[in-house]
Amino acid sequence: MINEGETGGKNFSELAIKYSKDYLGKIQTMPKVPVRGLSDFSVWYTPGVAAVSMEIAKDKDLAYDMTWKWNTVAIVTDGTRVLGLGNVGPEASLPVMEGKGLIFKYLGGVDAIPIPINVHDKEQIVNVVKAIEPAFGGVNLEDIESPKCFYLLETLRNEMNIPVWHDDQLGTAGATLAGLLNALKITGRNERDTKIVIVGSGAANIATIKLFEAAGFDIGNIVAVDSHGVLNPERDDMDVLMKTNPWKYDLGLRTNKKRITGEIKDAMEGADVLIAASKPGPGVIKGDWIKKMEKRAIVFALANPVPEIWPSEAKENGAEIVGTGRSDFPNQVNNSLVFPGVFRGALDARVRKINEPMIVRASKELALFAEEKGISEKYIIPTMEEWEVFPRVAAAIADEGVKENQARIRMSKEEYYDRAKKIISGNRGMIEKMMDQGLIKKVK
Amino acid sequence: MINEGETGGKNFSELAIKYSKDYLGKIQTMPKVPVRGLSDFSVWYTPGVAAVSMEIAKDKDLAYDMTWKWNTVAIVTDGTRVLGLGNVGPEASLPVMEGKGLIFKYLGGVDAIPIPINVHDKEQIVNVVKAIEPAFGGVNLEDIESPKCFYLLETLRNEMNIPVWHDDQLGTAGATLAGLLNALKITGRNERDTKIVIVGSGAANIATIKLFEAAGFDIGNIVAVDSHGVLNPERDDMDVLMKTNPWKYDLGLRTNKKRITGEIKDAMEGADVLIAASKPGPGVIKGDWIKKMEKRAIVFALANPVPEIWPSEAKENGAEIVGTGRSDFPNQVNNSLVFPGVFRGALDARVRKINEPMIVRASKELALFAEEKGISEKYIIPTMEEWEVFPRVAAAIADEGVKENQARIRMSKEEYYDRAKKIISGNRGMIEKMMDQGLIKKVK
Repeated sequence: MINEGETGGKNFSELAIKYSKDYLGKIQTMPKVPVRGLSDFSVWYTPGVAAVSMEIAKDKDLAYDMTWKWNTVAIVTDGTRVLGLGNVGPEASLPVMEGKGLIFKYLGGVDAIPIPINVHDKEQIVNVVKAIEPAFGGVNLEDIESPKCFYLLETLRNEMNIPVWHDDQLGTAGATLAGLLNALKITGRNERDTKIVIVGSGAANIATIKLFEAAGFDIGNIVAVDSHGVLNPERDDMDVLMKTNPWKYDLGLRTNKKRITGEIKDAMEGADVLIAASKPGPGVIKGDWIKKMEKRAIVFALANPVPEIWPSEAKENGAEIVGTGRSDFPNQVNNSLVFPGVFRGALDARVRKINEPMIVRASKELALFAEEKGISEKYIIPTMEEWEVFPRVAAAIADEGVKENQARIRMSKEEYYDRAKKIISGNRGMIEKMMDQGLIKKVK
Repeated sequence: MINEGETGGKNFSELAIKYSKDYLGKIQTMPKVPVRGLSDFSVWYTPGVAAVSMEIAKDKDLAYDMTWKWNTVAIVTDGTRVLGLGNVGPEASLPVMEGKGLIFKYLGGVDAIPIPINVHDKEQIVNVVKAIEPAFGGVNLEDIESPKCFYLLETLRNEMNIPVWHDDQLGTAGATLAGLLNALKITGRNERDTKIVIVGSGAANIATIKLFEAAGFDIGNIVAVDSHGVLNPERDDMDVLMKTNPWKYDLGLRTNKKRITGEIKDAMEGADVLIAASKPGPGVIKGDWIKKMEKRAIVFALANPVPEIWPSEAKENGAEIVGTGRSDFPNQVNNSLVFPGVFRGALDARVRKINEPMIVRASKELALFAEEKGISEKYIIPTMEEWEVFPRVAAAIADEGVKENQARIRMSKEEYYDRAKKIISGNRGMIEKMMDQGLIKKVK
């Protein structure tokens, strides 16, 4: 079915359009209970169900024990920043959110429902997401433009009783940290002294800087570059940023202790690490700029569908380790490695919040998983094929959730792991059996 | 599994609690497309999915052709009037909404998602429901208190581009009309002259009166009774009703052309038909009052779990035909006969609205289905076991949607029927095979 090529996109696009029309969507609902005839509805529905409602009316947390709430996630977007396509609207985001729902089920055993919404004002989005809380065990925000997304994540995390995650921020940051931790090990670096250049200051990179700080990196050694050049306290637009994007403004004050000014290439001189998540390349990052980095440089060029610089060019110019966002190169820095396990663990421990220490722990677990298998410049991070990583991430999140006092269900790390593994492998087994039995049609 | 008894409820309740805990919910998400490994996600997710999003960005109606929108329904409630339990809150409504989702799938082949919300102000509910429109092909409002539910249905029907249904109003009204039409045939009555007493003036009965009017009944021959007695233009509270419940006020002006006053028993004297949907009995309707009705009286006692009068008592006192809301008596007047087919047809014809003429048509089709099988005092309406009725209702709704100029996909009635039958039987077959294969666990 799949025909991969370095130029990316073309065949996948044609197939995606064809199969979307053939299958009319990627997910569906399915009973989890047997229905053998009318009389069973006397238990699944009225009159029996009234007793279940009365139990939950007495203690609403029982919804977790008697309905699908324990395992459901709302995938919420307003369609303002869908993939690299920009503001295409909530309807056009739906195929992406459905794909996400498919990944949630397949890799995390999570029942995730696409909820694209057609409100765009940040307060209205807050109201809608808070309104649907009773139905769900968690919220995955997705593809919402920055800086609105920072406000939404901050507000909803504080005001909701279920965990709220913005995957473009936290998932990408978590995967980037995991890959970087192993790249540092290979190249003999530590968190405190590593000099990092971040190119692009959208949702992912701002969250990445914050997560690096939470993981013990020196934020003063991080230099952020956006379309206006290197971020620093004296930049002309800092007054404006204070009002329009206080999150970036804050980083403008605290990063870049050497007060570097100028463009990307100025920031890259002498840097150990480049992390670009800006716009599709090639040519956004030049080979000559890589040459000016420290020896044994680490380069993550994460734009999709085409990285800011091709891995071959980065290597020819001195990069030792190169990561991209693509599955057809080594070292795919991929949020899909993170969110299925994160939500599995967050749901299993019934955490109130997924905070930064928990995400750092997940990243370290991802890194450790790869390290146990043997890291190298071509393998700094697990691949999605290594599904055993997802229960590992789940157990890490849940265990750290206990330590951070966010967990409402407290078990040992091993118990969380066993539970996550059982749920995820059970779901994969079910999906495989459905394919075997023709209940999921083969592609034509 | 099922142990039915005339006293109702007890065993079903215990089983419902036990199985809710065992199964942890009644529905789940499931892939509709094959996933054979990582590389398939290049089509189902990035990079391929971007092309699908771009198509929909150009024409958002393509979401119907390339995502699950064509087949999804949001089951929305604020939990203010759950079953007969009252305002138990959105969390406690979740098991009921999940059961509804199960029925939607099993009987209508529809992917329906429970969305209990924790806002209760009517304008806020409107905002939330309108906000989630992009994700869904239809909205099923459920278990929302009256008179708020009238406002919500009216407003959302007018302001949304997808069909909005309030099942407690329209589903119950549709089933009641279907049963009554056949009861009239058996007892030799017509719509214009039949004198009807309606006991209870909640969501169901107010919608029923309006639907009877749309079906050609003389609204002047209908007498409504609520907890304050017989509704009539001179009643003391009419001024208050004008403000608090304009829907009931309107019926107060237009029903009851004989200007009957008093209590239920006064209204029932000489009536042909009694439709009670008020509060659980027995004893809410007395046998003596039935005696005062016309010969060959028709009695629908629809309260759950116990009807306002036991069918045996109604018959002993002269009722010829008795319907209830229960499956363990003949003539179950059941909204579950209506909504799965209604939504199947509404989705297949992609209607903008399900209006009253379309609902009347669905009721007539239900009645006709029973008539073709042979109606009698014990069989005025199909049972849920007769699943062939659902594609019939679907085709009726869709065909009338074409006539009413609400359909965006125009086919012949036969084509709608074939499509609905194929989808519904396909889903039932899939569910049966999942049970056979142990993918849905047997009850213990």
